[in-house]
Parts: sequence; structure tokens; C-alpha cells
Amino acid sequence: MKTDVQIAQEAQMKPIVEVASQLDISDDELELYGKYKAKISPDVLERLKDRPNGKLVLVTAINPTPAGEGKTTTNVGLSMALNKLGKKTITTLREPSLGPCFGIKGGAAGGGYSQVVPMDDINLHFTGDFHAITSAHNLLAAMLDNHIHQGNALDIVTKKIVWKRVMDMNDRSLRHIIVGLGKKGDGVMRESGFDITVASEIMAILCLATDIEDLKARLSRMVVAYNSKGEAVTAGDLQATGAMALLLKDAIKPNLVQTLENTPAIIHGGPFANIAHGCNSVMATQTALKLGDYVVTEAGFGADLGAEKFFDIKCRYAGLKPDVAVIVATVRALKMNGGVAKDNLAEENLDALKAGSANLLRHLDNVAKYGVPAVVAINRFPTDTEAELELLRDLCKEKGIDVVLSEVFAKGSEGGMELAKEVINICENQKSDFHTLYDVNDSIEDKMNTIATEIYGADGVDFTADALKQVRELEKLGLDRLPICVAKTQYSFTDDPKKLGAPKNFRITVREVKVSAGAGFIVALTGSIMTMPGLPKVPAANGMDILSDGTIIGLS
Amino acid sequence: MKTDVQIAQEAQMKPIVEVASQLDISDDELELYGKYKAKISPDVLERLKDRPNGKLVLVTAINPTPAGEGKTTTNVGLSMALNKLGKKTITTLREPSLGPCFGIKGGAAGGGYSQVVPMDDINLHFTGDFHAITSAHNLLAAMLDNHIHQGNALDIVTKKIVWKRVMDMNDRSLRHIIVGLGKKGDGVMRESGFDITVASEIMAILCLATDIEDLKARLSRMVVAYNSKGEAVTAGDLQATGAMALLLKDAIKPNLVQTLENTPAIIHGGPFANIAHGCNSVMATQTALKLGDYVVTEAGFGADLGAEKFFDIKCRYAGLKPDVAVIVATVRALKMNGGVAKDNLAEENLDALKAGSANLLRHLDNVAKYGVPAVVAINRFPTDTEAELELLRDLCKEKGIDVVLSEVFAKGSEGGMELAKEVINICENQKSDFHTLYDVNDSIEDKMNTIATEIYGADGVDFTADALKQVRELEKLGLDRLPICVAKTQYSFTDDPKKLGAPKNFRITVREVKVSAGAGFIVALTGSIMTMPGLPKVPAANGMDILSDGTIIGLS
Repeated sequence: MKTDVQIAQEAQMKPIVEVASQLDISDDELELYGKYKAKISPDVLERLKDRPNGKLVLVTAINPTPAGEGKTTTNVGLSMALNKLGKKTITTLREPSLGPCFGIKGGAAGGGYSQVVPMDDINLHFTGDFHAITSAHNLLAAMLDNHIHQGNALDIVTKKIVWKRVMDMNDRSLRHIIVGLGKKGDGVMRESGFDITVASEIMAILCLATDIEDLKARLSRMVVAYNSKGEAVTAGDLQATGAMALLLKDAIKPNLVQTLENTPAIIHGGPFANIAHGCNSVMATQTALKLGDYVVTEAGFGADLGAEKFFDIKCRYAGLKPDVAVIVATVRALKMNGGVAKDNLAEENLDALKAGSANLLRHLDNVAKYGVPAVVAINRFPTDTEAELELLRDLCKEKGIDVVLSEVFAKGSEGGMELAKEVINICENQKSDFHTLYDVNDSIEDKMNTIATEIYGADGVDFTADALKQVRELEKLGLDRLPICVAKTQYSFTDDPKKLGAPKNFRITVREVKVSAGAGFIVALTGSIMTMPGLPKVPAANGMDILSDGTIIGLS
Repeated sequence: MKTDVQIAQEAQMKPIVEVASQLDISDDELELYGKYKAKISPDVLERLKDRPNGKLVLVTAINPTPAGEGKTTTNVGLSMALNKLGKKTITTLREPSLGPCFGIKGGAAGGGYSQVVPMDDINLHFTGDFHAITSAHNLLAAMLDNHIHQGNALDIVTKKIVWKRVMDMNDRSLRHIIVGLGKKGDGVMRESGFDITVASEIMAILCLATDIEDLKARLSRMVVAYNSKGEAVTAGDLQATGAMALLLKDAIKPNLVQTLENTPAIIHGGPFANIAHGCNSVMATQTALKLGDYVVTEAGFGADLGAEKFFDIKCRYAGLKPDVAVIVATVRALKMNGGVAKDNLAEENLDALKAGSANLLRHLDNVAKYGVPAVVAINRFPTDTEAELELLRDLCKEKGIDVVLSEVFAKGSEGGMELAKEVINICENQKSDFHTLYDVNDSIEDKMNTIATEIYGADGVDFTADALKQVRELEKLGLDRLPICVAKTQYSFTDDPKKLGAPKNFRITVREVKVSAGAGFIVALTGSIMTMPGLPKVPAANGMDILSDGTIIGLS
């Protein structure tokens, strides 16, 4: 089979103005970035505000394993299949991050015959949104350090600065640094570090803001440090809000591209699925819901993190009501969850599959707790046996959930017809009764406890002494009545990445609690979370090239 | 008078496709970035390679002072005036840097009624070229540190790493940092720092490369460190060339915008005028020369640095033959060069003007040494008296050079008609006999000596012991037969920023010599050169904003 970038470069793309006109977006509402990318004006949302929303389909997954699940690929394939069945469908995705692209993960534009294109542009600079976020973030950092250097009128305690710098790169050497060395004019010396851009609170804000005024209000609220009285110092206090908003004026507009089969794709924003909520932007999803009959969207990592945050943070803030959840799994990944080593996944193993399926079944129970109907999509591999697939069907049937096979990677929309039909069936015949899991006015401990027991299956939550102190401080600052954004390993329901399947009899430990006051959530960290990845021994970048005829090599 | 951003936001822009079609650029050769910005395909150059070049006009200036000279404004106004006189004219400029824009300098899109538009976009992210350069530069840095972390197969001496990181921001705290703190997985601890993006060698390369193959060859040659044998370790050795080129695939294409009067403007690249050569890209200038009758371009700082490097580096590499040089001065700045304090510039002072004019006259002599005819453009201020202007005319007449007044800031093209007519007159009636100043095969000391004595008026050059050692090393590495790029204060012909006018009886001290092997020049540093600016006490960013109707405040 051809490589992803070969398939993508052979794509028969339509001019993006044609894709837009099929959605009744006028030329005036479109800003072109080349022939195949465009930004959609916020005027579209204003013009269509009274039009009823399309159906909202969330694609989520079991806990990820090294075997791979294919969430984005399924998302793209499903949207193409729905379109083929006569439903005007838009896929809404997150933008890929440059760092992992050059590292080990590769891009994030789907795969095989279910990709969004132009894949190379999407995986590289795209329309510059991430660069704008990087600039805004680092402008604030420069203004903060400069404020202290110029006299520190706001009485900032340098050891209580919580605003780092960001770069869209995997660069382990920047995790822990000392800045401000040198001479008198070279700033104030202190410890600091860089996160990857997707971990910036500004990324989360861009994805939750509903317009430029809301963006500015959120930017202004961001806490960057504390003063000697323990009071929060914000971006607004540093008079940085306007300049940051100016840098973000185009980045807040959703980007329109297309799939390999010319289905419209709106790709916008990409917050870390760990210390942030991991969903594409609210403005993108809302715009898509006004333009399409069906909108297929996704959330980062497995459903314990991704779907939970999608429901409890994004849908809560944006007033969205998802109609159906597609839970992606592979037989291989379920067998890994059942204890099979990566090298032995090709062999039929019904016992391991049954054990590992407990992971999938718990996710099904969880989605039901939000009142959202679900379907399981098995991303099919040649090694899957009939007996294995039959076992899976039986297990899910006990929960009243259908299992459908997806072969969108190899076959595009043709491989997703069964899934698309089931999604339509559910949307037309089952009523979603969506509701969030907890009340934001509950205490931080109660909210965290609800998530841990209801979604993770834990017996309870322990806060370390430090974390409890932080909880009390947030209460004192009046910043506790916000949704919780849990930072937890994506590999397990527990806070231990090695405990696969559906573990029982465990507790979750919260080690640190901090506020993203601009984004509007409280981050509860349950372990050491990597916010700046590193490059592997042989980075993907080593194999990349562009030839003089424009041929691209090594992107995936 | 209105502010720059008010004038710019009221501009009657033509769709950029119309501007392009006036230049016979086809739709297929244009990539739109919104309605008013586009990238020009390299196919244009290939298609028109046999067409004779237009006239090449260099706009340069006296040594800059805090009084301001208005080089970019004159450039833009002149191009509009030439166009009005029936000459198909294109202005080619450098792209502004974000850092100074938020600091003290403001943007760099001209001023008053001689601006390029959309001014806000040009001053902010524009088409993302600088972000692409930042990404490519920092990818290489991450791959370098990762290489050492993963075992250091290339035997790199960490204390001999010469590749820093970059950010397009004024951030003094990043000048001197320690990276790689933390735990075992967090990289190798060492001293390092950030430069501003325009100081990246990749910026200089982008501006000198003639196509993607040349770009890759230059990227590959960049020296990032030395091994324990003293041999150069290059970007090519780190296998980073292809990935960097991929990141730069769109950035190497020139950007088309327009002036306030719809004259085409090609704005591309912006290397530091200090440690690099300070001119817009070769591809932009060459494309403009094929498309227009007249091309008005510029070079950074005063003519001792800007014009010298334009002639000896850019024109040498690109085979360009400038037809005329416009030397911009103001009466106010010349009086400052004659010793008047900034607060007293409004008063007539013929003695100071005469003394300060020595600066202008030396630049005129210098340009003549390259065989290029010149004209002096006085950017007129209301405080200039007739007696002062008459004195200037007399002084320049002794050199056989005409002085014309320019009022393009206040009047647009109407204020530049006299200048435009003189430029046409020179181009049609005087023959440029352009030649470079020195032979690249001369020794580093000889080349430096030629520049210092012929252009600066120095008695000679002293190399410090360290610098001499570096010269010998470059000779040993076979990297000495390249043009020299002098890093010197822009305020004086000497290496002392306080010595204004046209000092005599001084020597130049070279303190450091290093190679930019990819860009293809040797940087001779004559003092401590700031490659990462800082923010002032009240940054321009503090006053910036964007309102919900799109109105922009505080950009200039």
C-alpha cells in the first residue's frame, strides 16, 4: 500500500471555494490560504444563528495502546461515508502539532484513504494558528519578565511565577532552564521552562472562546503569577490582553479543508488532551453544526479523559448536545488490554480479548451515564478472526450496544458504510438525553471524586497535602467553581499507566491542583505530566525531505 | 494627522488578484493568503527568465539617528510616484519583525500616506515566513541537543556549540540561559541563549537562496558546532536539512501586497542588518526585476552597512546590477550628526548642518566607489528652512549630485514626483558601472581592511588575538573565501556609536570572526552586537488592542 503522504499528494482536491459553496458559505465569508485552505469568517455563525443545529457525533476510543486505534482515521472515514449516504456532513478535528510530527508520532490528519488534505500543509504550518498562539504566549512571558526587570510595580514574587514559555517543538532540553543570566540589562535570573504550544492555556482559551470579546475576557483572566500577598496577578494586570488578542485575530477563525473524498473538514485548535480539554474549538463545532446535517468530531485520548472533558467542559460551556458517541477499538488493542504483548497480537486469543474488552465495556457504561447513545466501531485488521469479532459482538450486545466493523483506512468511505448507517439509525431513532456529570458549584474534592468513581471506577480520591493546600487557596481566590480538567495517564483508568483493562479496587491520587482561570477549568494532576515531549533516538525529521518538483518524503 | 493604522485601515485596497494580473501573473502562479496577500510561485521566474530586467533602484540612507530618516517611507512613496509617471514599478521590502513591533520601534510598513497594506497583517504574522524560519531553526536546535543526549555519535563538544535558539520577540531574559536542567531524561545541561528570529542564519539563507535546491545546499552547510578534533559539524551531519527545507517550502516564495495607492509591493525576508546582510530576498528582487520596469528596494541601516552589504553580498551572489542609489537624509538628522541635541532640532543651524552633512557626503563618495549613480532625497520636515535646504544643495552639487525634496509621508506619490523624475532621469541618462568592492579570494584581513578604509574612512583594522585565532581557524577549515558581513554599530562610520558625522583618524577593532557557511559570508564583529533586543519600560504592546468590529488600535 502507498504511504499516507503519497496518497495525500495524489488526492483530487476541489478548490476550497467549491467546498465552501456547497456549504452555502459566500466568498465574502471566506479567506483563502492558497487554493485548498481557507478561514471561515465568524459572520457565518451570526448569519445562521437561528438555523437548527445538525446532529453531533463524538468519536472517542478505548484507552490507547501502542497497537493504535485509528480515532482520527475513523472520524474522517465516517464523515465521508455519511456524506455518501446523502447526509451533508462535516468532520471537525484538532490541528496537528509540529513537535510530535518531527518526533515519533507523525502527523494527525488521519491515515490511508481516510485523510484530510492538503495533508502536508495541515501537518506543517497550516494557517499559522499555532504560531499565533506561540507568539501571544511568549509575548506575555516577555512582558512579565520585563515588568519585573523594570521595577516590578505589581510586586510579583519571582518564585511564584506560573507562566512559562512555549514552543511547538519536541525539545527536552527546554523543560527546565534558567533564564535571565548575563549582565544587569539581561533580565532577572530565575528558574523557568518551556512547554509545547498545545499545552498553552491560550490554546485552551482559543478553543473555548465564542468570539473576540470572549477571547479577550478569558485572556485577561489568565493567572501568570502571585504577588507577595498571595493574590493572583493576571495577564490583564500586565496590560497584555489587547496585544495578545491582536496576535490571535485570525487564529480564532475556523479553518476549512476537505477529506480525500472532498467532504468538508473544519480543523481548528488543538489543546493538550492532558492538562487541557483536548477538543477542537467551540467556534469550529458551532459553525459546523449550522452548516451541516451531521458533524463528526473527536476528543483526545480514550473516553475516560477525552469524552469526559468533551462532555463536562466543552459541551457544558458551549451548550452542545451530542447525539451519539462512536467508540473506536481494535481487536489488537483490546488483546493488549487483556495482557498480550505487542509482538503476539497477530494470534487469536479469545481469553485475552474477553479480559481486555472490560476496558471497552466500562467506557460504554460511562458514555451511558451522560445520556448519550453509543456504537462501537472496530477498526478492522487482517489478523482479526471471525471468532474474535463474534465474541466482541456478544459482549457489547449484553449492554445493548451494536458493534460495527470499519475499514476506512484501506477503503475510504466504502469501508465506513456500515458505521455510517448505524450512526444515522441511532440519530433518527434514539433520543440523546445528554447531561453533564457534576455541578460546577460542588467543591473541588467532590467534583474530582465524582469523576474518579463514576468514570474511572476508583474507590475514591486522595489529595496530597500540597494539593489540598492548593485547593484551599483556589477557594480563597474564588476560583474553585469551575469544571475539573484531570491530567492523568491516558493508558489506564487508574493513575498508573501499567494497569490496563478495567482495574478495580484502586484510588486516585491528586498531587497538584492549579487553575486555568482564562480557559475556565481547574487542572487536577494525578501524576507527573509531560508538557514538553522529547525527540526519540532517530527522529522522524531525519527521514523527511522535499524535492525540487514539490514531492514530499517522510511525512505521515 | 491620522495615525498610520487609521490611514492603513481606511485604504482602498484592490483584490490582490487584480494587482497580480496587472503584472501578468496568472492565477495559477498565485497562492492567496486572504484577499489582499499572496505568494508568488517560483514558476514566474522560470517563465520570464529570458525577459530583460527592469531598472534596480536602491534606497539607502545616512547613518540613522533618533531623529529618524524615513527610508521605508521614501521607498514606498518613490515607487508610487514612479508608477504615476507611467513606469510599471514594484517596491521590494523586508518583512517586519514582531519583536520590535511590540517593543519600541513599531512596525516597518512605511508611514503616513506612503505605506504598504494590509499594514496590520504585514506587521503581525503576514504569511508566516518568520514563523517557518523560527520552526526550522528550533527544530535544528532540538535535533542537535537530542543528538548529544542520545549518545553524541558526532563527538560534538558541548562548549563549542554555536547554534542557539530563536524567537520572534524582544525578550531580554532569554539572552543567556542554561538549558537541560532537571533529570536524566531532560537533556544535557549547558549554557545557551535565544536570538531574535531575524538574526537566524536561516533568515539570511532564505534571502540569498535562488531555489529549493540552493536552499537545501545552504541549509546543509550551516555550522552548528565543532567536534573534539575542531572540525565543523553541520546541519547536514545532523540529517536535518530535508525537514528544515520542508518547513520552509512556502516561506521561500515571495509575498505580493500593495501600497496605499495600489502599486505592487513584494515583501519577503528580513535578515538582521547587523550580523546578516539586511536585504529582502534575492528571489523577490529577481522576480520583481522580471515583472516591472522599475524595482525600488532597500537595505538596512545607513549606507556604510546597508548599501555595502547590498552591493558586496546580495548583488555579488545574485548577479544584480543596481542602476541608481537614492540616499535618504533629513535636515534634522544631519544637524544631529553635526552635534545638535534632539530637543533643539527645530531651530535653524547652518553650522551644525554643514558639519553633519559630512556624513552624507562620505556616503555619496562611497556609493560612487561601486560605480552606481546617486541622488539625495531629503525627507522634508516643516521645521526645515530654505537656507538649510539651499546649503545642502550646494554641498551635494560639489559632488555632482542632485538633492530633491520628498514629502511622501504627508502626500503619498504627489510628494515624491520630483524624486521619481530624477530617478528616471538618472536611469535613462547615466550608465551604472556597478562593481563590487573587493575580491572574495582576498584574505579575511585584506577584505576587512578594504571595507574599513574605503567605506568607513578608517586608517586601518585591528584584530584582537581571539579574532585572529578565529581567522586562522576559518582558513584551516577552508571557509575564508567568502564575502565579509560586518557587524558594527549603525550610528557611526566608526565602531563607537557616539562618533557621529564623518570621523577621521580612527581604527576599527574586530573582536570576533565567525562564519555563516550556509548564508555564505563571514561575520566580523566590531563590538558587542545585540542579537536579542529587550522591551522598554512601557512596551508598545501595552497600548494595542483589537475591537469586536475589527478596528485595530496602537499598531504603527
